[in-house]
Amino acid sequence: MISLEDRLSENRRLVENWLKDNLPSPEEFPQKMHEAVRYSCIGAGKYLRSFLVLEACRVLGGKMEKALPVAGAIEMLHTYSLIHDDLPAMDDDDLRRGKPTSHKKFGEDMAILAGDALCTFAWQVIADFTEPMICSKVIKIIGRAVGTKGMIGGQVADMHWNRMSIPKPKILRYIHRHKTAALISASLGCGSVCAGADPGITQEMERAGVYLGMEFQIVDDILDETGEEEKMGKKVKKDSSANKLTYPNYYGLDTSKFLAQKYAEKACLSFSSINDRCESLVELTEFILKRSN
Amino acid sequence: MISLEDRLSENRRLVENWLKDNLPSPEEFPQKMHEAVRYSCIGAGKYLRSFLVLEACRVLGGKMEKALPVAGAIEMLHTYSLIHDDLPAMDDDDLRRGKPTSHKKFGEDMAILAGDALCTFAWQVIADFTEPMICSKVIKIIGRAVGTKGMIGGQVADMHWNRMSIPKPKILRYIHRHKTAALISASLGCGSVCAGADPGITQEMERAGVYLGMEFQIVDDILDETGEEEKMGKKVKKDSSANKLTYPNYYGLDTSKFLAQKYAEKACLSFSSINDRCESLVELTEFILKRSN
Repeated sequence: MISLEDRLSENRRLVENWLKDNLPSPEEFPQKMHEAVRYSCIGAGKYLRSFLVLEACRVLGGKMEKALPVAGAIEMLHTYSLIHDDLPAMDDDDLRRGKPTSHKKFGEDMAILAGDALCTFAWQVIADFTEPMICSKVIKIIGRAVGTKGMIGGQVADMHWNRMSIPKPKILRYIHRHKTAALISASLGCGSVCAGADPGITQEMERAGVYLGMEFQIVDDILDETGEEEKMGKKVKKDSSANKLTYPNYYGLDTSKFLAQKYAEKACLSFSSINDRCESLVELTEFILKRSN
Repeated sequence: MISLEDRLSENRRLVENWLKDNLPSPEEFPQKMHEAVRYSCIGAGKYLRSFLVLEACRVLGGKMEKALPVAGAIEMLHTYSLIHDDLPAMDDDDLRRGKPTSHKKFGEDMAILAGDALCTFAWQVIADFTEPMICSKVIKIIGRAVGTKGMIGGQVADMHWNRMSIPKPKILRYIHRHKTAALISASLGCGSVCAGADPGITQEMERAGVYLGMEFQIVDDILDETGEEEKMGKKVKKDSSANKLTYPNYYGLDTSKFLAQKYAEKACLSFSSINDRCESLVELTEFILKRSN
């Protein structure tokens, strides 16, 4: 029985190496651009989303090699979203994953383009490394997850919720559902597609992913209130000082913890309904509740 | 015999209607985002790239309906690149296609996200509306054209050429080849793929596209020197005042005109070698030499 920690670190090793081998080399022109792309994408972050792709594929009996490029692509898309969200015109953050943000390190123009490059390269590696049928299915799933009715919609709402005449609990749920849970859900859906699973199974994986994503983001909000900057690798208590709508600042810490717990339970139920091998995903769900970074 | 003008306006009608029908509605949440996406993408611009997709498909005996979503996707990618290039951190332009740029109209954060949205939606419509085999081939072609070794590479060089130790004629050619000609070439290549043409024909179309793209961009540089702001729909004489490397400011106007002519001749030769139906593309190549906007 392999422990969750071992699975997570094996995933990190695999995906990091794949990214190192497949992102353009910093020795190729334009060098600074390739340096910027690799700076944000390699050797940092939790690699949670890629883990979900590979793990969903594994528990459904698929081959890891088939899912690896998709896992890499999803990390690229996640990283692009972080680079653009950190820009001065957006959240204006100086620190990410324990180091200066892309625009602080390379300038704003290069950061915009580094994000654009990752949001281009991701689709290309899917086309380059997966069979046409998988490519088509996976792009449909990811496209929706990161588009204006997914991640981008969540970011718009996150920035402009106070100008929208929508009740706070509803818009708060919308933000977390779209900005975070959509891509987490898509990661599980894509792993399922790479394993050649039935559409019903893929749907159940995606549903579990929505719960897992909500749990993950509420815990993230809680850690922003209670966590340490050093462990988190980004500025903390920023949400409460800025004009951000979060679970703790709307519901308070206790209710937020309760809600995260509830989403975790739903995710576990959903995973358990798929098959017995999903216990690693159940374990991950429980692990996220206790995480400190 | 249908005239080039009629073909161009029929193309505009078709692609514009397709975009109107397929871009998310401004009545759907997040409304402002969908408004911003449509503002930049519909009802403006030359629709040159989509014309090349549809025309390449037509002259090679393909069905227009198969190529239309790809034509729409390429217009989305072109528009995304314009929105991001116009940002304050990049070229800082206030006027585009005869109206205020996206960040002037919607704010910088929304403009960044509107570009991101178009650079996401493009890949998704290809997956949604083309057969898996076409989807995979087309994404491989477009991915390279708009990535760091294509359009993004061209934009990096355009902004930072004076910090690069590369001879001016070489970097100037690189900029035009990558910032402009890459996507024009890919448009013809994609039209060819949609028609189910042999790889050799697709390659010849792409080669013609490189020449056509170089011609187009040199003429654009010339028009920036000699054209009228009203006709161009953007600020003119900006390149000479800014620190831009262009054909006229490096080679002078006469040599630039001569070089545009040479590229046009090469494009015509290349198109003519494909088949007799390519005369509309030859006509377009000649038309571009004489354009005034």
